[in-house]
Amino acid sequence: MLDLSEIKTNLFERFKYIKMPRMRNILIIQDEILSSLRDFLRGEGFVEILAPIIGPVTDPGIRGAKQVSIDFYGHHFKIMSSMILYKQMVVSSLGKIFSLSPNVRLEPQESLATMRHLSEFRQLDLEIAEASYMEAMDLGERMLAYVVRRVKKNCREELTSLKRSLKVPNLPFKKIPHKEAVDLLLSKGYNVKYGEEIPWDAEVALSSMFDDPFWIYDFPLTARGFYDREDPDRPGILRDFDLIYPEGYGEAISGGEREYLFGKVIGRMRSRGDDLRDYGWYLEMLKEGVSPSAGFGIGVERLTRYLCGLEKIWEAVPFPKLPGIASP
Amino acid sequence: MLDLSEIKTNLFERFKYIKMPRMRNILIIQDEILSSLRDFLRGEGFVEILAPIIGPVTDPGIRGAKQVSIDFYGHHFKIMSSMILYKQMVVSSLGKIFSLSPNVRLEPQESLATMRHLSEFRQLDLEIAEASYMEAMDLGERMLAYVVRRVKKNCREELTSLKRSLKVPNLPFKKIPHKEAVDLLLSKGYNVKYGEEIPWDAEVALSSMFDDPFWIYDFPLTARGFYDREDPDRPGILRDFDLIYPEGYGEAISGGEREYLFGKVIGRMRSRGDDLRDYGWYLEMLKEGVSPSAGFGIGVERLTRYLCGLEKIWEAVPFPKLPGIASP
Repeated sequence: MLDLSEIKTNLFERFKYIKMPRMRNILIIQDEILSSLRDFLRGEGFVEILAPIIGPVTDPGIRGAKQVSIDFYGHHFKIMSSMILYKQMVVSSLGKIFSLSPNVRLEPQESLATMRHLSEFRQLDLEIAEASYMEAMDLGERMLAYVVRRVKKNCREELTSLKRSLKVPNLPFKKIPHKEAVDLLLSKGYNVKYGEEIPWDAEVALSSMFDDPFWIYDFPLTARGFYDREDPDRPGILRDFDLIYPEGYGEAISGGEREYLFGKVIGRMRSRGDDLRDYGWYLEMLKEGVSPSAGFGIGVERLTRYLCGLEKIWEAVPFPKLPGIASP
Repeated sequence: MLDLSEIKTNLFERFKYIKMPRMRNILIIQDEILSSLRDFLRGEGFVEILAPIIGPVTDPGIRGAKQVSIDFYGHHFKIMSSMILYKQMVVSSLGKIFSLSPNVRLEPQESLATMRHLSEFRQLDLEIAEASYMEAMDLGERMLAYVVRRVKKNCREELTSLKRSLKVPNLPFKKIPHKEAVDLLLSKGYNVKYGEEIPWDAEVALSSMFDDPFWIYDFPLTARGFYDREDPDRPGILRDFDLIYPEGYGEAISGGEREYLFGKVIGRMRSRGDDLRDYGWYLEMLKEGVSPSAGFGIGVERLTRYLCGLEKIWEAVPFPKLPGIASP
């Protein structure tokens, strides 16, 4: 069970913890992760852009978490919970973009128990113009394999000290349609439904069945936000995906093709009950026309947790913000 | 004069602007800037850490700007305006650290006229344990010269298209004590004072007198926050510095040695009227003992503005947030 006294998110406790060899090793591996992610993407022709920190609107699809509202010169702004809408703005211009994007989501306190939720985290966010979701998945798995190879090669001592034996995953990764993942979990007695996201406990169980990362794809329309593209030939099925780490580490990546047609997005927003007035500039932009694109975000702290073999995600970041806990 | 209609910070206008060759060129140069900054620092043995986005306390010394307060699970948190206090936490453990840190400062609307203030910006923040301010300045100028060389070499076409001819600065940079800078400005009729920061207009005037970047150092104690270290042998003088871009581009870098002794910091806080209760963990940390260190932050958008030869800083970022303007 979770021992809250071990969390050490009080900043003074944290200061002492950061000086311990364990945390030093984790931070050194994290540096290698950041550097290898960027090296890989630059090698693939991606341009790094500066992510927004705040804005008039952010991603609405954040599964039970709350956004942070702020007063920006008398206007209602939010801290970014995901820069997805902003990636669509830039990808039409630059073709292949990435960003280390800062995100704040006030996760419910009960998500603390998953040991993989933080209320402040960073994603390596990327987007590719004219790409299919299969192409984005292909890039994602090559990127992950590259990072694992680099970390194994350059952080041998740190991994040994953390007692983490890391395996370079075999390519291509296994791809499981969402429906099959649900069937598998139903057969094991989990409470999962065809039309919904897979709950965290079931996702961990699924994750524990595999030794290599694997994809779940073709989520149902009802499970996701308005920006995931519906397959034109298979109504009700989204051209999207999650990557799941093995060994119980759970979700790594979430992404897909984007709904980029004005009329389709309006329809999706209406059926979800989104307030169209919140998305003025975004809808104007779609009306003007954006490139079709696909992309994803990979959580940097979760990647660190997986590669370092950490149970608790608050070890995977120097200054953790935990669900429900405001450390002084 | 400043034509507000040209700003195009409305996100839909921005979408169209980002697709224009001028903005594409700027963003491609910015990518090279980010990559060359990191390559340089990794070559010098720095470890990249993840900067905080929010926290219970942030840098108080932000010259007339306001911080953004948020509700974090019922507690009063702020969006980071500078991660300076947090760098001191980590530098004792890792020795040489850097971070691309997100910052929000609600600058007063009149700062819009400087064309170099944004309300949301990123710093390349770094800190070096056991270093003197002279060593930090030495690193800073070598870093800047490296970035200029890389941009000149790899972004030839983009610079030409922006009509920017860029000169690799000669090392070492000129170093001007604050007092001499004030004397020089007084002699030119500017309203500057020995015990204060140099006002923006005077700084621009000073900047216009030079063709290469230059340092102003040894600021007076009264001009800066509690974390800039007072010279033990010269009371009233801080071991700190700013780097100023030439050609009127103004401030590039701000930094110095840190006050790291508990007793000294308490005294400085009291004399400034800071509320000690806001800094509980920080003071506990100093009491426990941190490494002496020196470091600085270099604004990424201002560096982009200088290297691209832009008049307006809102061209130096994909999603600008301007002082006093909440674009929908």
